[in-house]
Amino acid sequence: MPRLHNFSAGPALLPLSVIEQLIDALPEFDGTGQGLMELSHRSQSFDNVIVRAEEHLRTLLGIPKSYTVLFLQGGASLQFFMCPLNLLCPGDGADYLMTGTWSSKALVEAKRCGDARPVWEIQGPLDRVPQDNEYTIRDNSVFVHYTSNNTIYGTQYSAAPNTNGLALVSDMSSDICSRPIDVAQHDVIYAGAQKNLGPSGVTLVILSPRALERSALSDRTRDGGLPSMLNYGLMASKRSLFNTPNTFGIYALERMLSWLKDQGGVGAIEQKNTAKANTLYTELDRSAFWTPYAQPNSRSIMNVTWTTPSPDLDALFVKEASDAGLVALRGHRSVGGLRASIYNACSLDSINALVSFMQNFESNHG
Amino acid sequence: MPRLHNFSAGPALLPLSVIEQLIDALPEFDGTGQGLMELSHRSQSFDNVIVRAEEHLRTLLGIPKSYTVLFLQGGASLQFFMCPLNLLCPGDGADYLMTGTWSSKALVEAKRCGDARPVWEIQGPLDRVPQDNEYTIRDNSVFVHYTSNNTIYGTQYSAAPNTNGLALVSDMSSDICSRPIDVAQHDVIYAGAQKNLGPSGVTLVILSPRALERSALSDRTRDGGLPSMLNYGLMASKRSLFNTPNTFGIYALERMLSWLKDQGGVGAIEQKNTAKANTLYTELDRSAFWTPYAQPNSRSIMNVTWTTPSPDLDALFVKEASDAGLVALRGHRSVGGLRASIYNACSLDSINALVSFMQNFESNHG
Repeated sequence: MPRLHNFSAGPALLPLSVIEQLIDALPEFDGTGQGLMELSHRSQSFDNVIVRAEEHLRTLLGIPKSYTVLFLQGGASLQFFMCPLNLLCPGDGADYLMTGTWSSKALVEAKRCGDARPVWEIQGPLDRVPQDNEYTIRDNSVFVHYTSNNTIYGTQYSAAPNTNGLALVSDMSSDICSRPIDVAQHDVIYAGAQKNLGPSGVTLVILSPRALERSALSDRTRDGGLPSMLNYGLMASKRSLFNTPNTFGIYALERMLSWLKDQGGVGAIEQKNTAKANTLYTELDRSAFWTPYAQPNSRSIMNVTWTTPSPDLDALFVKEASDAGLVALRGHRSVGGLRASIYNACSLDSINALVSFMQNFESNHG
Repeated sequence: MPRLHNFSAGPALLPLSVIEQLIDALPEFDGTGQGLMELSHRSQSFDNVIVRAEEHLRTLLGIPKSYTVLFLQGGASLQFFMCPLNLLCPGDGADYLMTGTWSSKALVEAKRCGDARPVWEIQGPLDRVPQDNEYTIRDNSVFVHYTSNNTIYGTQYSAAPNTNGLALVSDMSSDICSRPIDVAQHDVIYAGAQKNLGPSGVTLVILSPRALERSALSDRTRDGGLPSMLNYGLMASKRSLFNTPNTFGIYALERMLSWLKDQGGVGAIEQKNTAKANTLYTELDRSAFWTPYAQPNSRSIMNVTWTTPSPDLDALFVKEASDAGLVALRGHRSVGGLRASIYNACSLDSINALVSFMQNFESNHG
């Protein structure tokens, strides 16, 4: 079976050139006589990998020297708990901007760690993100949390929320490295790798000095201290090598970051991503046959969501698209409809193929 | 560079046939038109993988139907905390058998969750494991914890400790599926995959019904309840798919378990492992040039540890062995000396090559 146009929301498409480099590394890696997966995480060869991965990321995102970069396990879902556990001392507040399922899941875990509450919510469809003037930060709040891109609904912040200097935490699982960001405006950025950066099983965490100070304070304050595997300070002091990391996944991430550099970096990839998204949104706006889900000022350049005139036609669309070699276009099971996830590795060719299919589909069923 | 004789303690050698199957799956998997890493964890194809992995494991280890099998992230190091967090309510006791670094690390995390204490320790070299009559289980104890194989020292339990019916927990990271075990005697078995079962980044957890009952009790009893990602009950109810798992790693594990079945199962692999270990121990016992580390009744069939007459000769051994195509024989940085890790995928050919090299080395330097 050939590789098809893959619009999976994650784990998601990777560049074939990256896959080919992984294939090369599996039987024997870097002149060691050992395969990539069969190599000690304490070896020089693997240390070179993790050092290079960090260097790529620092270059791509312009991460300040004083910031820490970690490659952990457990996905964003473990960060939902680990992050507030490190940043909050008992009684401290945290303000959550509620833009969908992932914000809600993050809040559930934060409530176990301190006084975490929503400061912005909407009734009805989750079709937009807040403006800065729509919420008020609480006096006892230690940080504000936002989900930069909402995979399920196809909404995205065009800029980070303004917190007037209060610590800012972001779940960037579905748009990390898809565009330039101001890392220095954030105190914690976390992201599962499986959308824009590689396979599942690696979690990227970026920490400000202030975040590490708070982690040390939480460790001193909490009963029993912070569990080792959930302690940002300890993970930082061990350079993500406190225990055996996902070595294959970190190498895949390193190769993916190198590919991103070859594409011209995150500025260049943002232009490509925007062009891809605009091509799709132009089609969605062209005909009343399509109903885009996200409000125009909150549209995501990573996940494009829409419906046809009926759920039956949505299902037919998914089936006929798949038969035509365009796969994984079903909307998330919680909202239905259609979704094209068009992360960094998705080509404009795939977008053009999708638009052609959409126009044919409308002709046949409109 | 060809593949060399690889004695890495972990991540460790995998069978070339398994690596070749992973290579085949990376560009396109199972007729999906998507690569193995690029496939939704909610897809039918991946669901088949995780179901098959569980079936293989149930067959190989004879896991009772009432037991639960999970594929998590974070390694044994996260289980050091997660396991007592689920099994203990505040005030409950847990008894730890202290056979080395990994037991110690497990105890550190357990103390954060309850009244965890050592019930057996030795002074001096950690060259053996306890006999059943050498420790007393405390009255308030809810479980006994043991490390079935001690990678660093090359010691191993020949049978599970007897607890007279009290819950038994084992870290089997370095000998899982290397020999038959009585799963029903245990309440929690956990193991990182990266020694006998696949690449790093996947953690196997096997739970008895009693362990899940205690997890539910801990969730009701603890302030804030159990964090979702650290909740055995929740992970069980979601069949390891609460969030995105390490999909590549789970497929690698599934292929490795299938290979183990092809070898004749864990009874047959134990015979091979014992023959490999005996070949090495026979050489160690043959000449006073070698000093085996582990006491004879505690010798591991997974990690064989020894020294030459001096640290300088140990270092020379590692260098000359590496030049001769025998790699990763340096002892753990905490104890020095030499170590051959000879997990399931290690062939008798590699053992014979090592013994030949040892005999030449003794001739040249003895």
